[in-house]
Amino acid sequence: MRPPVKILTEADLRALVPLDAEAVSCIRDAFVALATKPVAMPPILRLDIPEHRGEVDVKTAYVPGLTHFAIKISPGFFGNPALGLPSTNGMMVVLSATTGLVEALLLDNGYLTDVRTAAAGAVAADALARRGATRAAVLGAGMQARMQLQALTLVRPLTGATVWARDPAMARAFAREMTATLSIPVAAAAMVEDATAGADIVVTTTPATSPILHHVAPGTHVTAMGSDAEHKNEIAPDLVAAAHYVADRLSQTRTLGELAHAGLQGSFPELGQILAGQAPGRSDDTQITLADLTGTGIQDTAIATLALGRAAKAGAGQTFTR
Amino acid sequence: MRPPVKILTEADLRALVPLDAEAVSCIRDAFVALATKPVAMPPILRLDIPEHRGEVDVKTAYVPGLTHFAIKISPGFFGNPALGLPSTNGMMVVLSATTGLVEALLLDNGYLTDVRTAAAGAVAADALARRGATRAAVLGAGMQARMQLQALTLVRPLTGATVWARDPAMARAFAREMTATLSIPVAAAAMVEDATAGADIVVTTTPATSPILHHVAPGTHVTAMGSDAEHKNEIAPDLVAAAHYVADRLSQTRTLGELAHAGLQGSFPELGQILAGQAPGRSDDTQITLADLTGTGIQDTAIATLALGRAAKAGAGQTFTR
Repeated sequence: MRPPVKILTEADLRALVPLDAEAVSCIRDAFVALATKPVAMPPILRLDIPEHRGEVDVKTAYVPGLTHFAIKISPGFFGNPALGLPSTNGMMVVLSATTGLVEALLLDNGYLTDVRTAAAGAVAADALARRGATRAAVLGAGMQARMQLQALTLVRPLTGATVWARDPAMARAFAREMTATLSIPVAAAAMVEDATAGADIVVTTTPATSPILHHVAPGTHVTAMGSDAEHKNEIAPDLVAAAHYVADRLSQTRTLGELAHAGLQGSFPELGQILAGQAPGRSDDTQITLADLTGTGIQDTAIATLALGRAAKAGAGQTFTR
Repeated sequence: MRPPVKILTEADLRALVPLDAEAVSCIRDAFVALATKPVAMPPILRLDIPEHRGEVDVKTAYVPGLTHFAIKISPGFFGNPALGLPSTNGMMVVLSATTGLVEALLLDNGYLTDVRTAAAGAVAADALARRGATRAAVLGAGMQARMQLQALTLVRPLTGATVWARDPAMARAFAREMTATLSIPVAAAAMVEDATAGADIVVTTTPATSPILHHVAPGTHVTAMGSDAEHKNEIAPDLVAAAHYVADRLSQTRTLGELAHAGLQGSFPELGQILAGQAPGRSDDTQITLADLTGTGIQDTAIATLALGRAAKAGAGQTFTR
């Protein structure tokens, strides 16, 4: 009576959904929908397991018109590396928006989250960075730092980049790898200020709990994507206050993002509103813009729907009769 | 690097986890843990899709000492029967409490929810009904009505039962079936009052949005398990006010259960507190007791852990390498 469930592995999904222009476009559409359609996106469900240094976020959203919606489970367990396991894992359950039946299980181990998060960085930079931006700085040197830098190359013709990380060896490894991957010079900097000097776009990707970015030059665009929890904070309050501040979802950034720590009240635009022309973007080439990205369920639903569509076309995955 | 994922189907789970004394005991232990351990149980994540008469609840809980926790996805889509599909479906994702890795997918289509919900009814009746209770009345004649009645037979030696449902044909079918299943006389009643007359235990299992139960005799125990959303309401405010009121989780029943509609403030005990001896249960044989069950994530984690343990012992399920 119930149709079979499709199961896609991380390997399937890496092949089906690379970080490319279509992924960026899919996430852009999701943010536009958030501003223009009666999207249902409940608050994030969060479970903390301090005993094992673990946390789990569950996100979802329904977009009218989409055939499916995803429920995304994102665990982060910070003792895992000591056990030889990655900190972050997880999966998505994809349900029919018409019947609520589980139609697919995306065993991506967090890969699709990486893609949709990086794609949101590209969407934000494309909407807010100066048209002529060519140089990027990345703070942090993990997986998401790599993907954010790669994502930027999809929306601006980068000629070079710098990276800073708390661990200089990681920054050097990042510089080496990304120089090869992107075929542009990527240099490691010893200090945050060295990394951001001359950068048109700065992306912060760290789990910092006190500000690491205090100043940027006029005209810079900053994407802060590291903070996704109450205690995380990458950007100094003065910089948040000085910038044209844009949230991915204001109700989330007021508690989870940089806005929370800046102590600012009042009304701020969301990225989707800017994309939809409902709110102003960058005013001129000297304005500092700041996109505060905490990660939204609508991105998960969008990337899962993209993955399912491509899997159907490619005949990928295994079906499981229940 | 990551271990394989175990997949159990509804058929596997029906064989592994029948509604029996051990299921009841497992749910009783979960409620005791809720009162005595630093359980983490975040608010329910709820997504509404009114366009398709759909709603999805996501529940979870972590119990210190348990090796796993479940994230339970419960969709209810009320246009499904017209499509030849059941209204309720869903599954559980079981994660390691130590690493956050997804270890099992329980494709139960809501079966384990049925079991843990019925088991909670048994736990509540066992804690609150008169020791000598032998007659039950059930309002509603669906799957959960059947399972609640069956669950009661595990905690009290029932000699007979009555059933009322809005649809008399459904009540008659229930009476016929349950007489055969339980080997006790089960009779259909035309009116709620006829069903509840002489009953020591009354269980309400309907999706009513205005009260269907107004009066019960002194000494009766009532389990109200139908309401799990803001707009649902089975018990008249006067009856709630007159009863010794017990919540499964007070923070939930204040918004989702009968307490919400009764307009009562103040403090009330939870089922786990009574089981743990932290709060008084029934005072005497004339007191009316009322257990307001909205369904808690800790029940899902408990039943999933029971299912996984039994699956491991039985070598049941399929493993899926990711």
